[in-house]
Amino acid sequence: MPVPPAYDDVRSAAERLRGHAHRTPVLTSRRVDAELGATVFFKAENFQRVGAFKFRGAYNALSRFTSEQARAGVVAYSSGNHAQAVALAARLLGIPATIVMPLDAPASKVEATKGYGARVVAYDRYTQDREEIGRSLAAEHGLTLVPPYDHPDVIAGQGTAAMELIEEVGALDALVVPLGGGGLLAGSALAARALAPGCRVYGVEPEAGNDGQRSLRSGEIVHIATPRTIADGAQTTHLGELTFAIIRREVTDVLTATDAELVAAMRTFAATMKVVVEPTGALGLAGLRTLAHQLQGRRVGVVVTGGNIDVDRYAALLGTPATGTPATR
Amino acid sequence: MPVPPAYDDVRSAAERLRGHAHRTPVLTSRRVDAELGATVFFKAENFQRVGAFKFRGAYNALSRFTSEQARAGVVAYSSGNHAQAVALAARLLGIPATIVMPLDAPASKVEATKGYGARVVAYDRYTQDREEIGRSLAAEHGLTLVPPYDHPDVIAGQGTAAMELIEEVGALDALVVPLGGGGLLAGSALAARALAPGCRVYGVEPEAGNDGQRSLRSGEIVHIATPRTIADGAQTTHLGELTFAIIRREVTDVLTATDAELVAAMRTFAATMKVVVEPTGALGLAGLRTLAHQLQGRRVGVVVTGGNIDVDRYAALLGTPATGTPATR
Repeated sequence: MPVPPAYDDVRSAAERLRGHAHRTPVLTSRRVDAELGATVFFKAENFQRVGAFKFRGAYNALSRFTSEQARAGVVAYSSGNHAQAVALAARLLGIPATIVMPLDAPASKVEATKGYGARVVAYDRYTQDREEIGRSLAAEHGLTLVPPYDHPDVIAGQGTAAMELIEEVGALDALVVPLGGGGLLAGSALAARALAPGCRVYGVEPEAGNDGQRSLRSGEIVHIATPRTIADGAQTTHLGELTFAIIRREVTDVLTATDAELVAAMRTFAATMKVVVEPTGALGLAGLRTLAHQLQGRRVGVVVTGGNIDVDRYAALLGTPATGTPATR
Repeated sequence: MPVPPAYDDVRSAAERLRGHAHRTPVLTSRRVDAELGATVFFKAENFQRVGAFKFRGAYNALSRFTSEQARAGVVAYSSGNHAQAVALAARLLGIPATIVMPLDAPASKVEATKGYGARVVAYDRYTQDREEIGRSLAAEHGLTLVPPYDHPDVIAGQGTAAMELIEEVGALDALVVPLGGGGLLAGSALAARALAPGCRVYGVEPEAGNDGQRSLRSGEIVHIATPRTIADGAQTTHLGELTFAIIRREVTDVLTATDAELVAAMRTFAATMKVVVEPTGALGLAGLRTLAHQLQGRRVGVVVTGGNIDVDRYAALLGTPATGTPATR
């Protein structure tokens, strides 16, 4: 296992990202603050390039390629935001990119990835192993594989969102972050420990896939089957070795949210902050709602991870509030 | 008729608004630029206080009250964003506010207005005249009436959005602005004329209520019945005397958009810019689409007026794209 990154690596990543990643806005809502009894700052990574925080880690990792690596190219596997993030970062840095995507990926995502100039290799997700394909492409063509979360440069890059948030709004009592493979949570925890030493750091994952919670509580990485949840960005089956090494040391607890709670949070974002948030991006607010009684009068940061969702699917989810969800107006 | 405001009044309004109104962000979209063949800058007033540009005009008008007027209070009639704008501006300035709202106004809007500390007077929109009620409340209690658009301070305040936009992004070849009663369009035209002299200025109104277009083309104010359109902020029946005086002098043309075109534009805002825009707020982009062939390679500003829409209604509209609307992803 490589050495896990430290806060210095997050700071270096921020230098590399300057002028390339957006410094995304911080949103607040009088109504959310009144509901929760806390002062909440939302770091809106749905306004990041490619519509998600993933650009930070991808750009940081690719910008550290040697000239030889850059000439040969990068390979990544992802059906989601990491694919587009690597494709755009590669184009900006003049690096050839190969993205391994499932045959049944939405046409819009395949087109977007190709639109950034990447070569897309399709695979059958029921019979083929994408990690295997990625590794064999890497070996065959001398490509460098950039995994979606378990990589020091990816973790450090993702940590720059929380770093910017705390630099902008000041110290926080708590930071609440969506959790899939743990790249964002690990990076955020590094930033919070360094910049707001007393800050509690929470991950939030789908209730249907609480491997992160079980891993943190048991002290070892728990593997699960692909969870059924609308939070497609958090359908990971296990934490990474590097991300877990940081998470077990720095993270206070991992919370969970149901799909109905995610829809309720998406409705709140639309109604009060006028922003489109994808289900995975709503994990932070949904988790915070279950924790609010512990945070009365506190200053809380939440990372909103992305806004990439097909409009028809967004409309359908938004229009089907579950019974008993919190009021959104 | 009072003297119509000039650009100096817009500048003075900007001074009064400093630190009270948000300086809203300017959004861009690679995909929209590619579709239209132009470089488009969206001034996102859906992020303004109360969720709409109306706060600018209301705050500017109320901040000019004499101490006697301020003690007696303000009265306004509106079922929409002007109601909440006057209520919040009044609270910030310590002025008692009375808002005349229809009996069948959405409970959420009535609650929001009361939440800002305003007294709400309900009327029956089928049997009573709100302007009459407003005037008689003003006369009886010595209140000052702030109308939704036909007032020099309201017009000047609304013009500050376009002023900020041009200051931030530089000169524009065209500026496209939603049109209801004309307060925003008139104020925007004053700013554009002063800051970007060659800039063409366009208003966009619902096709079902094209009184503004007919007024501009005929040279006199045309009155119509309340139009049926999803753009509830532009269901005005005629321009104001002051707004028309400016519009006929400064505005290049008035375009129209159908409800289906508004939905298509709302979908584009959600898909590409990740923002919730109310139907009236989408008039600018919808109108621009009909004009794009004239603006190839040009720099175009669009004012996005607001994001206040019930979430269920938003989901329902977003999920019903008309046949033949432009692709949104």
